[in-house]
Amino acid sequence: MLERNIAAMAAFARAHGIALRPHSKTHKSPDIARRQIAAGALGNCCAKLGEAEVMAEAGIGGLLITSPVVSAPAIERLMALLARSPDLMVTADHPDNVAALARAAAAAGRSLSVVVDIDPGMHRTGVASPEAALALARQVAAAPALRYAGVQFYCGRHQHIEAFAQRRDEITERTAYLKGIVEALTADGLKPAIVTGGGTGTHAIDAALGVFSELQVGSYVFMDHQYNVCDLRGDGRAPFEQALQIDARVVSASTPGMATIDSGLKSMATEAGAPPILSGVPDGTTFRFAGDEHARITFPDGVSGPGIDAVVTLTPPHCDPTVNLYDAYHVVKGHTLVDIWPIAGRGRSR
Amino acid sequence: MLERNIAAMAAFARAHGIALRPHSKTHKSPDIARRQIAAGALGNCCAKLGEAEVMAEAGIGGLLITSPVVSAPAIERLMALLARSPDLMVTADHPDNVAALARAAAAAGRSLSVVVDIDPGMHRTGVASPEAALALARQVAAAPALRYAGVQFYCGRHQHIEAFAQRRDEITERTAYLKGIVEALTADGLKPAIVTGGGTGTHAIDAALGVFSELQVGSYVFMDHQYNVCDLRGDGRAPFEQALQIDARVVSASTPGMATIDSGLKSMATEAGAPPILSGVPDGTTFRFAGDEHARITFPDGVSGPGIDAVVTLTPPHCDPTVNLYDAYHVVKGHTLVDIWPIAGRGRSR
Repeated sequence: MLERNIAAMAAFARAHGIALRPHSKTHKSPDIARRQIAAGALGNCCAKLGEAEVMAEAGIGGLLITSPVVSAPAIERLMALLARSPDLMVTADHPDNVAALARAAAAAGRSLSVVVDIDPGMHRTGVASPEAALALARQVAAAPALRYAGVQFYCGRHQHIEAFAQRRDEITERTAYLKGIVEALTADGLKPAIVTGGGTGTHAIDAALGVFSELQVGSYVFMDHQYNVCDLRGDGRAPFEQALQIDARVVSASTPGMATIDSGLKSMATEAGAPPILSGVPDGTTFRFAGDEHARITFPDGVSGPGIDAVVTLTPPHCDPTVNLYDAYHVVKGHTLVDIWPIAGRGRSR
Repeated sequence: MLERNIAAMAAFARAHGIALRPHSKTHKSPDIARRQIAAGALGNCCAKLGEAEVMAEAGIGGLLITSPVVSAPAIERLMALLARSPDLMVTADHPDNVAALARAAAAAGRSLSVVVDIDPGMHRTGVASPEAALALARQVAAAPALRYAGVQFYCGRHQHIEAFAQRRDEITERTAYLKGIVEALTADGLKPAIVTGGGTGTHAIDAALGVFSELQVGSYVFMDHQYNVCDLRGDGRAPFEQALQIDARVVSASTPGMATIDSGLKSMATEAGAPPILSGVPDGTTFRFAGDEHARITFPDGVSGPGIDAVVTLTPPHCDPTVNLYDAYHVVKGHTLVDIWPIAGRGRSR
């Protein structure tokens, strides 16, 4: 299913003339990054410097760090990374940060590619206005040791809007704002070579609008409950399959009507609610977290459920922070374990 | 502060004539387990087999696995662990599990110590009635390859009741139930050598009631927001210090009145709400998660806050699942980094 998801997104991108730089914040796995690149992706996006270090170490090229790298020790690490990965790109949204990057790259005798990050209105990262975007792009272009690579515009909040029409309308409005900035930059001789952003939730809308040159899709490789309830392409069909599962096990069943499984707050992300149960229980069974180590499953009235030692399979509520709890993937084809892939970037949140 | 917390709990236990087997589910660290044992603890509790494997590998003795170990592969691992740690103890709450443990221990030619787990009424793990406790204790005692070690009674839900009097009243009522079972076992010739349970939230009440022989305290080593708001000993004073902190960094500050830090859903447990901000911001600053990688801090009206590259220090909302996101502790005395301790049991949720 993972391979079909990778192939399906690659085919979509080819058909719509847009490039992919999938986000490794989802999978944290060089094995998956290699498969995405083999299917045509330009490289991988990385949320943090630590994630990029792991990907570069594993030989993954075409890396773009999508959050600002600001501290002096981090910029020192960035220069070491640039030495091994000359095509590395980093985003920036503040003149002080651009100045620090320019000084560091000059001191290292290297050229660092910088993408100007533009806030789409959610006030997370990015410059706050078209004027600030223009000023920062000029600053980057004027710095001898920096290369102005383009712009980033990531509408994170919009990715999980469940109704396609609402998502499309809001993204269309936001993308008009981006288009205005791209035009202003172009008029100033700063036409962005790269316009990067988008995600699994908006990829079809982004591709249709034609402003982005590449998409930072992440979750499509695995899918999760949050995205499964979104109509991704406006046709009511699911273009990607649920490829990531958590196998839990019943460890206690002393009270009739319920059982306790070995997967709690330490086994999956909790901010997106309870995980749907994929298999191993009677219809109508409900799930409730029962602390750090366990969860309780409750069976419908009068129905008996699995006893101790039974396997209960869950859909992750939110894939990225769930993956970030585990050290390895167990790769299964049908019912056969075919490989174990390390989650090499796990915990690299800095 | 960690060392003072370890010493304070050890002194409390000595003064009250109760033993400690602190829970490694909190710290996942052999370095901390060793310090607890040096201060007088009997060993460490472990939530899962995988955690016990890591602790045993690091030479920690006196291990008690507090959740049932049920699957055939897990019992095989348990026997391998028993070979290296003959004083290992495991809890059980189901006759089928006791039978499987007895068969495995007999086949391995070893003696396994089993603690009968009693449900205090929260229906997570443990036998559901005094009769079931007696029957399971008899089954354990009758199995040649098992050693009946005692009982476990863990009131997890009660640990975080904020008001001391309510916590005391509920625990007193629950402990009366436990006491009845202990008396019934004793009358049957099955007096439990070990009565284990309790936690940071109830330790003072448990010690006063005199039914437990040892306490499974965990969070006291670090403390967290959940426990900081609990009156732990009924005197309104905090017996333990906040020893665990998250240093975040401002990575974006493009919008007046707010800033973005580099710590989001992947950097701390989220089920216990937002982390209080310990330092680095003006009074009245609020915290809001902003996705997997970031959070937003918002300053009071008209007050300016830290700019990019500033450090903002947070109190973990809930220590155990926060620790489970990191690979190492940075051990600080005053302002000096004095050591780095691996979180060797991280991710060992099975």
